Amino acid sequence: MITVIAIAKDGSIVEPKLDEISFEDYRLIWIDCYDPKDEELYKLSKKIGISVSDLQIGLDEQEIPRVEEDEDFYLIIYKAPLFEEDITTTSLGIYIKNNLLLTIHSDKIKAIGRLHKLISTKKPRIVFERGIGFLLYHILNEITRSYSRILMNLEDELEELEDKLLAGYDREVMEKILGLRKTLVYFHKSLIANRDVLVLLKRKYLPITTKEDRENFEDLYYDTLQLIDMSATYREVLTSMMDITLSLENIKMNQIMKILTMVTTIFAVPMWITGIYGMNFSYLPLANNPQGFWLVMALMVVIIMIFVYIFRRSGWI
Amino acid sequence: MITVIAIAKDGSIVEPKLDEISFEDYRLIWIDCYDPKDEELYKLSKKIGISVSDLQIGLDEQEIPRVEEDEDFYLIIYKAPLFEEDITTTSLGIYIKNNLLLTIHSDKIKAIGRLHKLISTKKPRIVFERGIGFLLYHILNEITRSYSRILMNLEDELEELEDKLLAGYDREVMEKILGLRKTLVYFHKSLIANRDVLVLLKRKYLPITTKEDRENFEDLYYDTLQLIDMSATYREVLTSMMDITLSLENIKMNQIMKILTMVTTIFAVPMWITGIYGMNFSYLPLANNPQGFWLVMALMVVIIMIFVYIFRRSGWI
Amino acid sequence: MITVIAIAKDGSIVEPKLDEISFEDYRLIWIDCYDPKDEELYKLSKKIGISVSDLQIGLDEQEIPRVEEDEDFYLIIYKAPLFEEDITTTSLGIYIKNNLLLTIHSDKIKAIGRLHKLISTKKPRIVFERGIGFLLYHILNEITRSYSRILMNLEDELEELEDKLLAGYDREVMEKILGLRKTLVYFHKSLIANRDVLVLLKRKYLPITTKEDRENFEDLYYDTLQLIDMSATYREVLTSMMDITLSLENIKMNQIMKILTMVTTIFAVPMWITGIYGMNFSYLPLANNPQGFWLVMALMVVIIMIFVYIFRRSGWI
Amino acid sequence: MITVIAIAKDGSIVEPKLDEISFEDYRLIWIDCYDPKDEELYKLSKKIGISVSDLQIGLDEQEIPRVEEDEDFYLIIYKAPLFEEDITTTSLGIYIKNNLLLTIHSDKIKAIGRLHKLISTKKPRIVFERGIGFLLYHILNEITRSYSRILMNLEDELEELEDKLLAGYDREVMEKILGLRKTLVYFHKSLIANRDVLVLLKRKYLPITTKEDRENFEDLYYDTLQLIDMSATYREVLTSMMDITLSLENIKMNQIMKILTMVTTIFAVPMWITGIYGMNFSYLPLANNPQGFWLVMALMVVIIMIFVYIFRRSGWI
Amino acid sequence: MITVIAIAKDGSIVEPKLDEISFEDYRLIWIDCYDPKDEELYKLSKKIGISVSDLQIGLDEQEIPRVEEDEDFYLIIYKAPLFEEDITTTSLGIYIKNNLLLTIHSDKIKAIGRLHKLISTKKPRIVFERGIGFLLYHILNEITRSYSRILMNLEDELEELEDKLLAGYDREVMEKILGLRKTLVYFHKSLIANRDVLVLLKRKYLPITTKEDRENFEDLYYDTLQLIDMSATYREVLTSMMDITLSLENIKMNQIMKILTMVTTIFAVPMWITGIYGMNFSYLPLANNPQGFWLVMALMVVIIMIFVYIFRRSGWI
Repeated sequence: MITVIAIAKDGSIVEPKLDEISFEDYRLIWIDCYDPKDEELYKLSKKIGISVSDLQIGLDEQEIPRVEEDEDFYLIIYKAPLFEEDITTTSLGIYIKNNLLLTIHSDKIKAIGRLHKLISTKKPRIVFERGIGFLLYHILNEITRSYSRILMNLEDELEELEDKLLAGYDREVMEKILGLRKTLVYFHKSLIANRDVLVLLKRKYLPITTKEDRENFEDLYYDTLQLIDMSATYREVLTSMMDITLSLENIKMNQIMKILTMVTTIFAVPMWITGIYGMNFSYLPLANNPQGFWLVMALMVVIIMIFVYIFRRSGWI
Repeated sequence: MITVIAIAKDGSIVEPKLDEISFEDYRLIWIDCYDPKDEELYKLSKKIGISVSDLQIGLDEQEIPRVEEDEDFYLIIYKAPLFEEDITTTSLGIYIKNNLLLTIHSDKIKAIGRLHKLISTKKPRIVFERGIGFLLYHILNEITRSYSRILMNLEDELEELEDKLLAGYDREVMEKILGLRKTLVYFHKSLIANRDVLVLLKRKYLPITTKEDRENFEDLYYDTLQLIDMSATYREVLTSMMDITLSLENIKMNQIMKILTMVTTIFAVPMWITGIYGMNFSYLPLANNPQGFWLVMALMVVIIMIFVYIFRRSGWI
Repeated sequence: MITVIAIAKDGSIVEPKLDEISFEDYRLIWIDCYDPKDEELYKLSKKIGISVSDLQIGLDEQEIPRVEEDEDFYLIIYKAPLFEEDITTTSLGIYIKNNLLLTIHSDKIKAIGRLHKLISTKKPRIVFERGIGFLLYHILNEITRSYSRILMNLEDELEELEDKLLAGYDREVMEKILGLRKTLVYFHKSLIANRDVLVLLKRKYLPITTKEDRENFEDLYYDTLQLIDMSATYREVLTSMMDITLSLENIKMNQIMKILTMVTTIFAVPMWITGIYGMNFSYLPLANNPQGFWLVMALMVVIIMIFVYIFRRSGWI
Repeated sequence: MITVIAIAKDGSIVEPKLDEISFEDYRLIWIDCYDPKDEELYKLSKKIGISVSDLQIGLDEQEIPRVEEDEDFYLIIYKAPLFEEDITTTSLGIYIKNNLLLTIHSDKIKAIGRLHKLISTKKPRIVFERGIGFLLYHILNEITRSYSRILMNLEDELEELEDKLLAGYDREVMEKILGLRKTLVYFHKSLIANRDVLVLLKRKYLPITTKEDRENFEDLYYDTLQLIDMSATYREVLTSMMDITLSLENIKMNQIMKILTMVTTIFAVPMWITGIYGMNFSYLPLANNPQGFWLVMALMVVIIMIFVYIFRRSGWI
Repeated sequence: MITVIAIAKDGSIVEPKLDEISFEDYRLIWIDCYDPKDEELYKLSKKIGISVSDLQIGLDEQEIPRVEEDEDFYLIIYKAPLFEEDITTTSLGIYIKNNLLLTIHSDKIKAIGRLHKLISTKKPRIVFERGIGFLLYHILNEITRSYSRILMNLEDELEELEDKLLAGYDREVMEKILGLRKTLVYFHKSLIANRDVLVLLKRKYLPITTKEDRENFEDLYYDTLQLIDMSATYREVLTSMMDITLSLENIKMNQIMKILTMVTTIFAVPMWITGIYGMNFSYLPLANNPQGFWLVMALMVVIIMIFVYIFRRSGWI
C-alpha cells in the first residue's frame, strides 16, 4: 500500500496520488510504502528513480540499522517495535532524495501510522515546514516513543509478576517471563543499533539536516540511551526473578516432601502394631485381656505423639 | 514545592520567597524545586529564564546522568538513591545559571533535604562563600554519602543473611536476596553514570568550577569508584549465596527423601509378614504353635535390624 | 576431485581437463579441488606453481579465516557451513594467482557445488566477465546465503520448540536444543571470523578487486553482520528456553509430589482405623454393635473429607 | 599504635620514640601507624606535617588503590590481605615525604608486622641503605608474598575439596566453597587494583624511585599478574565444582527415589493380596484348601520376582 | 638433569658434557635442564654466566609467559601442556645468549623430550643450521603441536561423552566433564599467554630472529589462534552439555516420581477396601453373602482400572 502526503508550494498539505506527483510542485513529499506488491514496487521505483533492488533492502525485516550515502539518495535503516503475538522488532527503510522522503516497510509499524494520521487529519504545517531533516526527526521520534511506551508498560508488568511470584507462583508467570525476556532481547539489540544511527545523525553527517535537526537527534540519542539502560536493567531483574523462582520452587518441594515423610513416618510403627495384632495366631499376648485393646491403643497414640514431638522439635511443623 | 536559600551581599543567609527575588541582590542563590505543580513550574521558568521543556528534563526520573552545556546555563543530571518500598534511584536535575543553582526533582531526595536543613538551621557561610562550584560539590557529596550509607548497611545485611542461610534457610531470606539484588542493579547503573559526570567535572570542563572545586570532584570521583567496586563485590557475593542456597536446598531434600525411603523400606517386609499372617486361611503354618507369634515377631525384628544396619553402613543414618 | 571451469578468450565457457590447461588461453579459470588424493594435490601444485604445503593450509578444516598476501598469490581462508549429522562449519581455502582462482576444501561444501552447477549448466557469462574479484564475490555470496538459509530454518525450529516446550516437554526437545546450541556456537564463531575477512576485502586491500567488487563485499559485510546478530539473538532465546524448561520441570515435579502426598495423607488415618479394627482382640469396642461398622465407616469418610477440604483450601487441588 | 624504625647517619638501625625524632638526624625513617587513637593521629599529623584528614584516607579500609601526588608528599593506597574469620582484604596507606615513609592502616596487616620484626631483630642495613624506593618495594613485595602464600594454600584446599566432592559430598564442603569464592572475589578485585598501582610505579613516575627500584616494581608487577591469573583460574574451577555438585546431588536424589519407588512398587501387589485374604468373608476362595496358603504365597513371591526382574532389566538395580 | 646437544663448527651434531663445553667451539648449543638439583643449577649458572636467581624464574611453574630482554640474554617464558593425572600446563623458561639456547623447566615436558630425541637419533642438521631463531621456532612448534594433539583427542572425547549423556547418564560422565572443563580452563589461559609471546616474536623484536624465522612465528601465531578458538568452542559445548544433563536428570526424576505416585494412588482405595473388610465387626455388609467376596473383588478391580485409565489419559503411562 502506498500513501503520499505532501506540502504544496503554497503551504497547504495535500494527499496526491503517486501517479500524479511531479516532484517540483511540492516543497516536501512523504511517501509511505507498506508491504508493497511487486507492481507497486516497480511503479514506485520508476517514479522516484531508485532501483527495485535498492528498495528491497528497506523491505528486509532483518536488515541492520545504518546510514548509507548512495550516489543520489540517502538510505537510513531503523528498527521499530512490532506488535504481534510477541512484541518483536522490524526494520524500516527510509530513503531521502532531494525533497522526497520515502518510508518502506514490510510490516505494519504503529508509529508510522500514528504520525501519518496526525498529519492527514490535523494538517500541522510545522512538521513539514522546517525541512526534510525535521520530518525525519519526527518519524524517528515517534518510533522511539513507541519503544518507550512498551517499556513503561513492561515495568508495570514486572512489578505485577514479582508480586505473583512471591504470593504463589504458577505456569503462566513462567510463560510471561519467557515472553518478556524475548521481547527485551530483541529490544536491546534494536535500540543499540538505532543508537549507532543516531550517533551519525547527531554529528553533522548528512547535508540534509540543519543544526537544529542535529540537536533534535541528540535529544533522541539520549532518549535511546535511556531506553537501552532501562531494557538492560529489566533484563537483570528478570534474571534475578528466574533464579529466585527456582529456589522458591525448591523450598515448596521441600515442604511437600516433609509432609509426605512425616505422614509416612508417624504412621509406620502404629500400622505395624495393628498388623501384628491382626495376625491369626491362636496365641497373641494380651489378646484375651479385656484391657488389651486399650493398652495397645495407648501404645500407638504414645508412639504417634513421640514422632510428632520429634518433628516439631526439628522444625518440620 | 519550591524553597529558596540565598546568601546576601553582606554575607547573611536568608530564605526569600521566589517572587521577591531579584538576582542581583544576592551573591548566590539555591532554589530547590520538588515535585512542582504546573503553575509553579511555569512561574519558576519565567523567573529564571529557562524554558519549561528544559526544566521538565530535570523532572524525568529516568533521565541519563550527564553534563549539558546550553547557551546560557549548565544542566547536570545526577542519580540519587530513593528510599521507598525497595531502594531504587531517581534522577536529579541541577541547573546552573550565573549566580543561581537550581535543583529540580520529582521524588523526595533525602540528601537534598538534609543539606537544606543544615544550611537553614546552622547557616554556615562556608558552603556559600566559596562560590557556586563549591555548593555543587556539597550537593553531589551529600548524595554520594547517601549511597555510601546504604551500601554500608547492606554489608551488614549480607553478613546476617549468610548466617541465616547456613543456619537454616527460609522464604524470607530468598525474598530479601531478591530485593538486595534489585537494589544493587539500580545502584550499579546509577553509580557508573554518576562517575561519568564526575570525570567531566574533575577535568576543567565548566568555567564555573575553581581548581579547588575540581580537586573536590576528584575526591568524589574516587569515592564513587569505591562504591562501584563495593556494589560489584556485593553482587558477586549475592550470586554465590544464591548458588549455594540452591545446593543446600538440594542437600536438605536428599536428607528428607532418605528418611522417607528408609522408613518405607524398613517396614516393607515386616508389614508384608503381618499381612501374610493376617490372611484367613484355615491352615497357616505355625499359627497354632504357641511359640508361633514370638517366632514371627523375632523374624520381623531381625529384618528391621538388618535394614537399619544396611542403611547405617551406607551412611544414610 | 578436481574440476575446472574457464572462460575462453572468445567468451565461451568451457570445462577443460586440468592437464590440458595453458593459463594464457583463458581469460579466467576456476579450479575447484575437493578432498584431493595425494597425487592430485601434487599434480595441481606443479601445474599452478603453488607448493603442496601451502595448498594443505586450505585443506585444514580448522584453519582461521584470514587474507594472506604471499609473494605471487593471495590466500583467503573462509568458513562455510557443513551439512552433516549436526550442522557445523569447515574451512575453505581460496587461492588467487593471476587469472586463476582455486578453491580447495576437504569437506563437501554445498554452496560451491551449487555455484559450480549453475555455471556449468546455464553458462552465464556475467559471473566470469567482470573479472576475478567478481567471481570471488559470487563464491563468498553463495556461502553467506547458505548460512542465511540455515538460520532462517532455525528460526522456524525455535518457534516450534517453544510451542512444544509449553505444551508439554520431552527428552527430544532437550536433545534438539542441545543440537541447536552447538550449531549456533560454531556459526557464531565462523561468522565473526568471516566478517573480519570481509572487512579487509571491502577496504581497498587487494589489487585484484575493483571498486564495484568492494561495494559488493560491503553488502556481504552487512549481510554477515545481520547473520551474526541473528545467531546471537537465537542463542539468547535458547538460553532463556533452557532456563524456563528447568523451572517448568520443577513445577511439574511439585504437582506430582502433591498428588503423592495427598493420597498418602488422606488415607493414612482411615487405614490406621481399619488396622485397629482388624486386630484380633477378644474385646473391641463397638465390634458387636450392629451399627459399629457403619459408625466406623462414617468416621473414616468424615476424616477423608476433612483432609480433602484442607488440601483444597491450601490450593493443592 | 605507632612504631618507628630509622637508620641513623652512621648506618645504625634504631627505634626512636615518635616524639624524639628530628628528621634531619636520620637517613631514612619508617613510621608504622596501626589503628591509631585520635590523639595519636593528631600528634603524628603535627609531627610530620600531613593533615589529619589526609591521614584518615589511609585508614579507610575501602579506599581504592592508587598513587596520589600531593604538594609535598606522595600517597600510595595498596590492598593487603587480612586474616580474619574469612580472608578478605583491607587498604593500606603509604605516605612518602622526603626521607620519611609512613604506613598507616586500621587493620593488622601480617606482612607489615613480619617485615617490621625482621628489620628490628636482624637489623639488615640493605633494606634501608638503598633509599626510600627500595623500602617501598620491600613493603609491597611482602604484601604480594602474603597473597601468594594464601593462594598456594587455596590450591591445596581446592584439590582436597574436589576429592571430598566426588567421594560423597556434604554441607561443610558447600560452606567451604562459599567461603573460598568470597575470598577469591575480594582477592581478584584487590590484585587488579594493586596491579594498576604497580604499572604506575614501574614506569618512571615518582622521582623517589631509582631505575633499579622500577625494575623491582616490574618484577612485582609480573608476580601480581600471575596471582590475578591464578585467582581467575581458581574461580572458574570453583564454578565448575558448584555446577558439578548440583548434578551429583541430582544423581543421588534419583537413586534414592529409585529405591523408594522400587520398594513401594514391588510390595504393592503382594500387600493387596494379603489384604484380600485378610477380608472377613464367610466364603474366600481357597481359604479352606490346605494348599491355599502355599499357593497364595507362591503367587506373591512370583509377583515380587517379576517386578525385581523388570527393575533389573531397566537398569535400576 | 642437564643434557647438551650442539653442532660443531664442522656441522657434526655432538652431545658434549656440560663441564667440557667451551662455547667458541660450537656453532650452536642447546642445553636442556630439567628439574635441576641445587648444585646442578649453580654449576650451570657459573658456566653460562646467568645468575641463579634469573634461572629460577624459568623453573617457576606459574610464571607468566612473556619475552624479557635482559642485558646480555633474552628470556622467553612459554606455557607447555603437562600430562599428569589431570592435563594441566607448566611454564618453560628459554634463555638465549649468543650461540646458546637454554631450556629450563621443573616438570617433564613431552614436546622437549620428543625434539631432543629426534635430534640425538636422526641428527638432522637442518634444525641447527639455520640459526638460533630456527631452533627456538622448532621448540615452540613442538609445544604447540602438543596442545593440538590433546585438543584433537578432546574433541573425540566430547563426541563420546555426548552419546553417553543422551543414552543414559552416569556419575563417571560428570567427573569426566569436570576434568575436561578444568583442562580447558588451564589451556585457554596458557594459549592466550603464549599468543602474546608469539605476537612479539613475529614482529621484528629480537635481533636473534631472521625474517624467515618471523614468518615461521607468524604461522605458529595462527596455529595458536586456532587452538584458542577450538578451546573456547569446546568450553561452550561443555557448558551446554552440563545444562542439558541437569534437565535430563530432572526429566528422569519426574518419570520416577510418576511411577511412585501412580503405584501409590492406584492401590490406595483397593487397600482401604481390604482394610475395611478385614475389620472384626460382628456385622459386615455382604460378609456372609457367598457372592460378597467376588463383588468386592470386582469393585477393587474396577477402581484400579479407572485409575489406570485416568493416568493413561493424562499421558503418565
